[in-house]
Amino acid sequence: MINFEAFFKLTYGLYIVSSGDKNRGGGFISNTFFQVTAEPPRFASCCNKDNHTAQLIQETGAFSVSVIHQNTSADLIGRFGYKSGRDFNKMEGMQVKYGETGVPIVLNDTIAILECKVIQTIDVGTHWMFIGELIQSELLDDSKEALTYLYYREVKKGFAPKNAPTYIDKSKLEQKEVKATAKKYKCTACGYVYDDAVEKVKFADLPDSWVCPICGSEKEDFIEI
Amino acid sequence: MINFEAFFKLTYGLYIVSSGDKNRGGGFISNTFFQVTAEPPRFASCCNKDNHTAQLIQETGAFSVSVIHQNTSADLIGRFGYKSGRDFNKMEGMQVKYGETGVPIVLNDTIAILECKVIQTIDVGTHWMFIGELIQSELLDDSKEALTYLYYREVKKGFAPKNAPTYIDKSKLEQKEVKATAKKYKCTACGYVYDDAVEKVKFADLPDSWVCPICGSEKEDFIEI
Repeated sequence: MINFEAFFKLTYGLYIVSSGDKNRGGGFISNTFFQVTAEPPRFASCCNKDNHTAQLIQETGAFSVSVIHQNTSADLIGRFGYKSGRDFNKMEGMQVKYGETGVPIVLNDTIAILECKVIQTIDVGTHWMFIGELIQSELLDDSKEALTYLYYREVKKGFAPKNAPTYIDKSKLEQKEVKATAKKYKCTACGYVYDDAVEKVKFADLPDSWVCPICGSEKEDFIEI
Repeated sequence: MINFEAFFKLTYGLYIVSSGDKNRGGGFISNTFFQVTAEPPRFASCCNKDNHTAQLIQETGAFSVSVIHQNTSADLIGRFGYKSGRDFNKMEGMQVKYGETGVPIVLNDTIAILECKVIQTIDVGTHWMFIGELIQSELLDDSKEALTYLYYREVKKGFAPKNAPTYIDKSKLEQKEVKATAKKYKCTACGYVYDDAVEKVKFADLPDSWVCPICGSEKEDFIEI
């Protein structure tokens, strides 16, 4: 038997994994970035094959990682976590520097950065696992705590987006958080609350094409609170 | 430039990864266990090629993962994290159940378990990365927090052992924690403190073969506090 609740006991950080170049950059929020060997320092990053950033990593053979802090803005998470880089250049308007390989490195809300050159690409099914050799790493702010998946889920009430390795179809979980009397709906990406009591249109009556006014997440990414 | 301090901003859990069978089991403390795809649920575990458990995983084609809680005993961490299963059967005296594949699953201080069948073995240098398809998972105790590498490092003052993907040669770090006046030494595995003031022999004069009386860690695993 598989109990999906067990998955929530696994610990992950949340990072922005970026790739591309000065003309066209992309990035996504990843919870599966981790060190795989100490000598030499090598890291792995797991990326959905449909992700625009996966394509950029394959084209450039490199990626960067920004470790973001706990109070990262909902806007940043919405931009990198719940929108596709196919639709717009995610690096536009961001604080970005470019690494030795030419990939963009996001600096907003970032406490540490790492830059890796891909040495191996592994097909693990729906995702690519990129193994990268570390080229550079930098500690930018030692005073802040790194954002973790647990913090994002428990404090910020966020869920993993569909392309994440840890995405869980909510119908598989017991619906203990949903109360029959509730009339408020929260964006699982950015935390924005839609309150039926103060809106002209009830949430249930909003069209499927409606998106979160803050981060652009889809209607189905909202949960009743 | 590579700043190793940046590595400490990456978030990991700490797990017991086990393999073997009823006659001979083994396990090690791992901080690199993570989900790589959601459909089907697949997980990866990174294991030093020298680890006895790596050999057992290759022989059985399966492994289990025990998510241990924050107040896990130092003895458990010492047993699985800093000793080799070549020297003794680590499962002896433990609360263990056996999975569908026959691998042992450690239950001591455990809040969730997962069992995986290996579908891919990747050579990432000093380590093997085993990709496993999930066979079963169980939530055993939802009331406790999972042990994280950060908690182990900051609260319990532990360091990664030599075979860990995240092992850092302490000489590469700034020695800010070491004070010239200090005369106490702490085991980085279990937290045991050796106090020169109350012992007959000064820590510095102990032979290199001396080991921690609590968890068996080597003298070099102690740090001045």
